[in-house]
Amino acid sequence: MIRILVLPGDGVGPEVTREALRVLRWFIDHRGLKAEITERDFGLVNWQKHGTMMPDETWARIEEADAILFGAVGTLDQKAVPAEERRKGGLLRIRKSLDLFANIRPVRMPRALLETSPYKPRVIEGVDLCFVRELTAGMYFGTPRGVTGESPDRRGVNTHSYTEAEIARAARFAFELARTRRNHVTSVDKGNVMEAGALWRDVVTGIHAAEYADVELRHLLADNCAIQLSRAPRGFDVIVTDNLFGDLLSDAAGAIIGSLGMLPSAALSAPDAAGRRRALYEPIHGSAPDIAGQGVANPLGAILSVALLLRHSAGMPAEAALLERAVESALDGGARTADIAAPGEAVLRTEAMAQAVLDRLIHD
Amino acid sequence: MIRILVLPGDGVGPEVTREALRVLRWFIDHRGLKAEITERDFGLVNWQKHGTMMPDETWARIEEADAILFGAVGTLDQKAVPAEERRKGGLLRIRKSLDLFANIRPVRMPRALLETSPYKPRVIEGVDLCFVRELTAGMYFGTPRGVTGESPDRRGVNTHSYTEAEIARAARFAFELARTRRNHVTSVDKGNVMEAGALWRDVVTGIHAAEYADVELRHLLADNCAIQLSRAPRGFDVIVTDNLFGDLLSDAAGAIIGSLGMLPSAALSAPDAAGRRRALYEPIHGSAPDIAGQGVANPLGAILSVALLLRHSAGMPAEAALLERAVESALDGGARTADIAAPGEAVLRTEAMAQAVLDRLIHD
Ligand SMILES: CC(C)[C@H](C(=O)O)[C@@H](O)C(=O)O
Ligand SMILES: CC(C)[C@H](C(=O)O)[C@@H](O)C(=O)O
Repeated sequence: MIRILVLPGDGVGPEVTREALRVLRWFIDHRGLKAEITERDFGLVNWQKHGTMMPDETWARIEEADAILFGAVGTLDQKAVPAEERRKGGLLRIRKSLDLFANIRPVRMPRALLETSPYKPRVIEGVDLCFVRELTAGMYFGTPRGVTGESPDRRGVNTHSYTEAEIARAARFAFELARTRRNHVTSVDKGNVMEAGALWRDVVTGIHAAEYADVELRHLLADNCAIQLSRAPRGFDVIVTDNLFGDLLSDAAGAIIGSLGMLPSAALSAPDAAGRRRALYEPIHGSAPDIAGQGVANPLGAILSVALLLRHSAGMPAEAALLERAVESALDGGARTADIAAPGEAVLRTEAMAQAVLDRLIHD
Repeated sequence: MIRILVLPGDGVGPEVTREALRVLRWFIDHRGLKAEITERDFGLVNWQKHGTMMPDETWARIEEADAILFGAVGTLDQKAVPAEERRKGGLLRIRKSLDLFANIRPVRMPRALLETSPYKPRVIEGVDLCFVRELTAGMYFGTPRGVTGESPDRRGVNTHSYTEAEIARAARFAFELARTRRNHVTSVDKGNVMEAGALWRDVVTGIHAAEYADVELRHLLADNCAIQLSRAPRGFDVIVTDNLFGDLLSDAAGAIIGSLGMLPSAALSAPDAAGRRRALYEPIHGSAPDIAGQGVANPLGAILSVALLLRHSAGMPAEAALLERAVESALDGGARTADIAAPGEAVLRTEAMAQAVLDRLIHD
């Protein structure tokens, strides 16, 4: 039995999460997934209802959940909320408190979308790569940080910091993942300029030699990685990198698909004594306030996040693959939301797109 | 009279710089460019000849030059050189010592290369954008930095630091540049996570309101910028950002062209009392040790760097445009080095490609 906490959040979060939940329930009803589902408000709605971004009761649910199914956070009006409240109710606090250090961001090119991608088919056909982005250290959390002095003499500082242990666990996670895929890891740093990047390279190299010599490893500088993701994205299998480079480069790679609406993610902790990892699953598209409430958002990023949940929290890799095939097959059958439609193609609403996936699940 | 110091450097640097120099000399002989040209070794060759990466006499030439025409630095064997020597003889020392804070990186899509680009023509046709990357602060130079502790408990730290003055001068440079182009600036930061990024946004916003309200300004988060560069690169005119984001994002944007071999850059200081800026011009492709010495490297990045020299150091914008048109016209006429040739297309060597440009200059 896994305890799943659903946090639909802001913007399009509730719309896409509702559909992801329908898909999740299908696996409970038809494939023996044992899960107990709880749902809570998250984000600006808490501030509006309760005067705090994070009610204590919600935080208690977050701390006890095995898996969080997350929608999106962040809205145009969020500026209205004091910075301290925003931090208290934000995603970064969850990542850090639950120690969700391993952020998995797969980018797989569906054949059906070769036309809508900004890239030429010959470059992206068959792309199937996966980022392991370190998620609990680096620039996001290093100290000292902040702004000192008075205008016009202010100074802004942030600190990029990694311990050997933080690098090592991200590297091990990446090598393990590569063994379940095509056995190839690209480690990305800026070691020609940053000492912390040279340390990153050194630690990854050491772990590779001592524990994972069967996996192929190459190192790329972050700027060169940005280029190679454009020129030869099929050359990547698993890419391991730090929190900040992972943020940029995984979005750059995601652009290959043509819409962020397609992309899922998982953030996992280290396993506890019983071997179980805490986890948060979320589409990477964000709250998209410009289209929120219209029922037109692409639910596939959220639905593919359910596939990651099946694989990484429920231990059901066959069901995860079944769901991924259903999404691919719905796309092959011509199902399109607005973000992935070519000019002139018929467009489905959020709910109808999810239904197209459910129809394939039922028939497969 | 401008004093130009030529530093061909390592790898393919000498091959492409030789051709850039032929083009430069054409402007001296036929267009009244007044320049005094000096050439010095740079990079590993100094280490091999003199046992130091930076002979004092070379440094004296660097300090007195108005403009440096730079090839490339960095080779596979450079690991053999002690880190301290590498720093002494490196590009970062020149950037910092000459205070070359404004790094201009134009990305212009030549019509003739629409087929070789990894992107679909409909996305990239007409792309004409220009980065202003801050080049003397941020992660590259912030302290504290380094690795402390002993394995397995080492920690690597680098510091991202910006003063208001450093942000302000980069912003002003970008707004001024935009006024000579399409009057639009995109400022890029990660202000939702980094306090120094929020300061960046605040300072750019303030300068815009007070001094450049006629220029259109938008702010993008760095991860979103990576996506927009793929989805809608025509939406950019001038992009201003910090040293590290500029490194990654300008390479990501450069990938649009299909080969880094096409891309020039300039790094400029603030004007002195006489209004003159120090400057360094270089193709962004680097030393490419894998093809060095074969005479096959693309010289167009180096040649287009000469165009930037004509515009920013020689005050000859008409001649700069003439050279840029000659390059475009050589490409339109089918001139291709290996890096930009479509399968089956005839390929020119480095020297022949430069000659194709010179032929167009002569006939125009
Ligand atoms: C919303 C933001 C804080 C977050 C990040 O920068 O990590 C987002 O961009 C992501 O990639 O999950
Ligand atoms: C060679 C390296 C130090 C340099 C940088 O990171 O700035 C290069 O990538 C560049 O962009 O000019």
